[in-house]
Amino acid sequence: MSVLVVGSIAFDSIETPHGTLDNALGGSASYFSYTASFFTKPRLVGVVGKDFPDEHKHLFRSRDIDTEGLVTQPDGLTFRWKGRYHQDMNQRDTVEVHLNVFGTFNPVLPERFRDSSHVFLANASPVVQAKVLDQVRRPRLVLADTMDLWISTQHNELMALLPRLDGLLLNDSEAQLLTGKTNLVAAGQAVRKLGPRFVILKKGEHGAMLFSDDGVFVVPAFPTEKVVDPTGAGDSFAGGLVGSLFTDDSPPPGRLRRAMAYGTVVASLTVEGFGLDRLKRTDRAEIDRRLDEYRNMLAF
Amino acid sequence: MSVLVVGSIAFDSIETPHGTLDNALGGSASYFSYTASFFTKPRLVGVVGKDFPDEHKHLFRSRDIDTEGLVTQPDGLTFRWKGRYHQDMNQRDTVEVHLNVFGTFNPVLPERFRDSSHVFLANASPVVQAKVLDQVRRPRLVLADTMDLWISTQHNELMALLPRLDGLLLNDSEAQLLTGKTNLVAAGQAVRKLGPRFVILKKGEHGAMLFSDDGVFVVPAFPTEKVVDPTGAGDSFAGGLVGSLFTDDSPPPGRLRRAMAYGTVVASLTVEGFGLDRLKRTDRAEIDRRLDEYRNMLAF
Repeated sequence: MSVLVVGSIAFDSIETPHGTLDNALGGSASYFSYTASFFTKPRLVGVVGKDFPDEHKHLFRSRDIDTEGLVTQPDGLTFRWKGRYHQDMNQRDTVEVHLNVFGTFNPVLPERFRDSSHVFLANASPVVQAKVLDQVRRPRLVLADTMDLWISTQHNELMALLPRLDGLLLNDSEAQLLTGKTNLVAAGQAVRKLGPRFVILKKGEHGAMLFSDDGVFVVPAFPTEKVVDPTGAGDSFAGGLVGSLFTDDSPPPGRLRRAMAYGTVVASLTVEGFGLDRLKRTDRAEIDRRLDEYRNMLAF
Repeated sequence: MSVLVVGSIAFDSIETPHGTLDNALGGSASYFSYTASFFTKPRLVGVVGKDFPDEHKHLFRSRDIDTEGLVTQPDGLTFRWKGRYHQDMNQRDTVEVHLNVFGTFNPVLPERFRDSSHVFLANASPVVQAKVLDQVRRPRLVLADTMDLWISTQHNELMALLPRLDGLLLNDSEAQLLTGKTNLVAAGQAVRKLGPRFVILKKGEHGAMLFSDDGVFVVPAFPTEKVVDPTGAGDSFAGGLVGSLFTDDSPPPGRLRRAMAYGTVVASLTVEGFGLDRLKRTDRAEIDRRLDEYRNMLAF
C-alpha cells in the first residue's frame, strides 16, 4: 500500500508578470510527490543529471518521499524547461526545452516499488507510461496525465493505454482534441468511452470536471487573488487527489469528490508562490482549513 | 412588493452550429421576465413597434407578467438583433443590429410600478438606467447589468450609477476592462469598491462568482451536454436570481448564495433550447429538481 509517481524532475525557469524564477526545482514528479507527501509517504521514480544538487534530494527526503527510484545519470544533465506566462496567467509559452536525461528516460521500478497500490503516471509518452504500468503488480488505482503532443503523435499507443487506466487527467482543450467534441460535458463523457473508469478535465482557473459512473461533478477553482505562478498546478491537483484517495476509506462516490476538492485546494496553494515556494510554507492543517473554507463556500 | 424589469424586447435571429432561429421573441426583458415568472408575477417595462405580434404579448400574460409598462410605438419597428455563435458556443458575433424603437427608449414607469421592491435594470446606457431608478420610490434591491460599450463610452455616467446599486452583474472580461485587473478575484473585488454592495461575474460555461461582504462565492455552471443556444443565459440567470431572492425570507448570506444557484439552474435550462423554447417546456417543479441535483453535485 503506497503511492507511486513516475514523471519528470526538472530545473524550471519561469517568467510571469509578477517576477521571474531561475533554475528552480520543478517537474511533474516533484510537484506530485511534494503535494502527495501531505497525505502519505510517496515513492518517486525519475531521472536527473550530474548537475542535480543534493539540496533537492534532501528536500524530497525531508518530506518523507522515498527516493530509491530517483536515478542520477552521471554523464548527463537534468531536464530544463523555461516558460513565460502572459498577462492573464492562463496562457503560457514554452521558451526553451532541454530534455537532457529525461529524453531517454526508461523508468525501471525498484523491486519494492512494484507493490504500489496507487500509481500516478505523470505526463510522458503513452509508451513509457505503459512500460511503467507493466512493472506494477496489482495496482488499486492508476491515474495518468497526458497532453496534446501524445494525442497527436502517439494516438494508437494512447488508445491502447486508456482501457488500462482507472482515471485519465487532461486539459479541457486536450479532451476536445481527443474527441472532436467542443462541449466539455460531451467531450468528457466521450473520453470515458475510450476506456478510463473516470475522467478529470482540468480547466485552470475555472476548476475541474469529474466524469464517472456517478455522473458529472464540477468543482470551481478555489478563488485566490494571489496567482503568482501556475506552474505545477495540474500535478499538485493530482498529488492532492491521489494522496487523499490513498488515505480515505469512505465509500464512493463521496471519496472521489472529496479527493477532487483536496486536489483543488492543494493546487490553489501551489499557484500562490513561485515553484514549490508556497508548498514549503504550508502543512496538512492549513490544507484542511482551506478545504473547510472551500466546502462552506460551495454550500447554499 | 414586486419585481420590476426594464430592458429590451427584441426579434432575435440566431445561427449556431446546431441550427438557426429567425425572428423569435428575445431581448433582456423578455428572458428576465419569463424566468422570474417561475417565482413571482414580474412587472415588465419595454418598448416594441407596430410589427410586434399579439401572440408575444399573450405569451407574457400567460406567464402572469404584468405588461402595463409595455409600450407599443405605432410608427416604429421592434428592436432586431442577429447573432452567430462559433463552434465552441462561448463566442458570438453580432451580424446585424437594428435598434429601431429601442434606440430612443425613454422608459416611463406606470404609476403603480413605482413601488416595486426588486428592480432589474437590464443592459442599457447608465443614463437610461439612472432615469429608471429615479422613478422607483424605495427599492429593497436594485440589480443592474452592463456591458463593455458603456464601460468604454459612458464611463463617468456608469461610475455615478454604481453607488446607487445593490448588485452589479457583468461578464468577466467586462470586469477586467472596468478595473484593469486580470485576476478575476481581484477584478471582482475592485468592482465592489466602485460602489455596488455585491458584484456577480458571469463566466458563461464556467459559471459565476459572487463578491459580497461574506467573501467570494463561486458556482460552476450546471453541466449540460445540450447547449443549443446561449442567448439569454445572462438575463435568465438574473431572472432566476432576483425571482428567488424576492420569494426567499431566509437570512443572508445563504439567501444570496441560493439565489446564485437558482440563477445558474434557470440559465442552464434556457441554453438547452433555441430562444425561449426550453423555458416554455419547464416549470417550477423541474427547476427545483435541478436545483437539488445541482446541490448534490457540489457536495463532497
